[in-house]
Amino acid sequence: MKNLPTLVLLTAVTAAFGQTMVSPEVHSDSRVTFRLRAPDAQAVTLRLEATRVPPMQKGERGIWSITTEPLKPDLYAYTFMVDGVKVLDPSNPALKYNLLNSESLLHVPGPATLLWEINDVPHGVIHRHLYRSAIVGDDRPFLVYTPPGYDPAAKRTYPVLYLLHGYSDAEDAWTSVGRANVILDNLIARGQARPMLIVMPLGYGNREVIEGGWQGLARPGVFQDSNEKSRDALLKEVIPQVEKAYCISSDRAARAIAGLSVGGTQSLLIGLNAPESFAWIGTFSSGGLDPEFEKVYPNVDESLNAQLRLLWIACGQQDGLIGVNRKLVDWLKSKGVEPAWTEIPGGHSFMVWRRLLADFAPLLFQAD
Amino acid sequence: MKNLPTLVLLTAVTAAFGQTMVSPEVHSDSRVTFRLRAPDAQAVTLRLEATRVPPMQKGERGIWSITTEPLKPDLYAYTFMVDGVKVLDPSNPALKYNLLNSESLLHVPGPATLLWEINDVPHGVIHRHLYRSAIVGDDRPFLVYTPPGYDPAAKRTYPVLYLLHGYSDAEDAWTSVGRANVILDNLIARGQARPMLIVMPLGYGNREVIEGGWQGLARPGVFQDSNEKSRDALLKEVIPQVEKAYCISSDRAARAIAGLSVGGTQSLLIGLNAPESFAWIGTFSSGGLDPEFEKVYPNVDESLNAQLRLLWIACGQQDGLIGVNRKLVDWLKSKGVEPAWTEIPGGHSFMVWRRLLADFAPLLFQAD
Repeated sequence: MKNLPTLVLLTAVTAAFGQTMVSPEVHSDSRVTFRLRAPDAQAVTLRLEATRVPPMQKGERGIWSITTEPLKPDLYAYTFMVDGVKVLDPSNPALKYNLLNSESLLHVPGPATLLWEINDVPHGVIHRHLYRSAIVGDDRPFLVYTPPGYDPAAKRTYPVLYLLHGYSDAEDAWTSVGRANVILDNLIARGQARPMLIVMPLGYGNREVIEGGWQGLARPGVFQDSNEKSRDALLKEVIPQVEKAYCISSDRAARAIAGLSVGGTQSLLIGLNAPESFAWIGTFSSGGLDPEFEKVYPNVDESLNAQLRLLWIACGQQDGLIGVNRKLVDWLKSKGVEPAWTEIPGGHSFMVWRRLLADFAPLLFQAD
Repeated sequence: MKNLPTLVLLTAVTAAFGQTMVSPEVHSDSRVTFRLRAPDAQAVTLRLEATRVPPMQKGERGIWSITTEPLKPDLYAYTFMVDGVKVLDPSNPALKYNLLNSESLLHVPGPATLLWEINDVPHGVIHRHLYRSAIVGDDRPFLVYTPPGYDPAAKRTYPVLYLLHGYSDAEDAWTSVGRANVILDNLIARGQARPMLIVMPLGYGNREVIEGGWQGLARPGVFQDSNEKSRDALLKEVIPQVEKAYCISSDRAARAIAGLSVGGTQSLLIGLNAPESFAWIGTFSSGGLDPEFEKVYPNVDESLNAQLRLLWIACGQQDGLIGVNRKLVDWLKSKGVEPAWTEIPGGHSFMVWRRLLADFAPLLFQAD
């Protein structure tokens, strides 16, 4: 067996007219065939992340299909459009779950050196907590990753990364899509990252910001309120709970905050305005940045360099948000702050964020 | 705010032509409106669990909709069919995830007395483990629910329920769809169930049984091999790990095994053939039962009555499997065994299994 998780490996087969249908079928040369049975549909198309695909063809028994060129090892989101309606692949149980736009997930397996591939190494545990938030006024989850070998009765404390998701993500996006647990398991096994806990809260501070769909993000009052309340829920509700339940440090030198897209912006709003709380800050493709940096980060000056161990700002080169992220870096430099800037190929995508987490985590909590 | 989880409450809104669309919309009188935008579709229908619904009507802007009669408080699976293709509701993030047939999930909220409703009570934690199985030859998860107040450093041990899912379920079906954690949180808060751990393994012992779709279940060799290997993975791999990682009892008097559908059959195969390991057995709508009971359970006789604290067999009255389950009860009685038989209204559905778990859990680990 290949060292891949059961649920992703599992290429489901659908019984149809006594025959079976596989989709997606990853061929030995990494071409991939997608199939959908839709005998009554007028038009079926495939949307495949980061890939141009030719039109699907209708074949026998009403099965539409297309085979791609060889694809690089990665996890690709995709959906079918059937007569203008989005359809998840009924033959594939692997999902990229999302609050506004769930998609099917294709895994093109790669070598074990790829950090998001499950290897035969010790694995950490993901813990799902549920609590009633007085600040937001709902019942909400947060997740905690404990590293391999974590001993709840140990006398030592572990460093902790507070890791924030993006807009429309669920609280489990960093593990279920981003494979943060797999990446950390692998890095720790190789001695390339320090054993750390990762705490993943829910990043919505009110219902309106997400119930309103993508329009919610565009509403300044709602968005700002959401960011402030989710900050308060993290600082005043989640962190006290995890510090009580787990052996983690409350020392700023052993605390990092990072996030992707809106979670990156939230990491800056929290971290740059409270450097006494976090010595390590990371942003991946920050989204929803208010370009009036002077107003948003009034306390930023060169004293940050002595306070922060790391201010790491990263973005994909094909991400439409790279411009505002570069402007942020330029502004920080104009204030005498020295951020670390990273850009890698790719768009606004977990394809980029998995790689960025693999770049970022090894930097954390290292001695000078 | 109502005491419901964020992600289920969250009635997502989709922006369309500057207007928003809500689906499903639960009205104050518990009627529910479903909406799908499909301007180019020839036919759109709604399949709603346990409910007859009239045809959907096409309205303005290509939006198809239907409003039901008032629905009883419950969780209902549903899908749209668009020109013959299954479509999940793009406006609703709540899913009934399944390896062969994911569906959208409608929550019609009910009073806090319903045990699957989240109440303002202490909550347990769900832990997701990943390990490499030598027996099955893959990397696979199992879940562990620890009850509210569970202290990993405690000297005491807790009783444990090994809880098995049904065919086509993922390993998290009992919590994500069955709400086992919510039900136990509520029962424990009321003093109606003893604090216990629940261990939920993955129930497939080979790939063929699930990759083959529903046909896999019909293949005796594959199905039997799957049941034997998943039994061995539970007994030889999962149980040793959880007994090492958690404060749980290895005493048979504090160990239960139960499951739904195929998981019920697996509970009988494991429990009735190893009464030295489990003193409590429960089955909910057992599926895949081999009616040659004499051959499958060769050691069953009246001595079981002294060994088992509980042999609980239950089924929905509208479940097609109720016949073979009744035959099993009759056969057990003919052997001098005294099972407890429970039937409640409903089909082969989590609507039944949530209620049955709420009936079963209070019986466990009680003194004589």
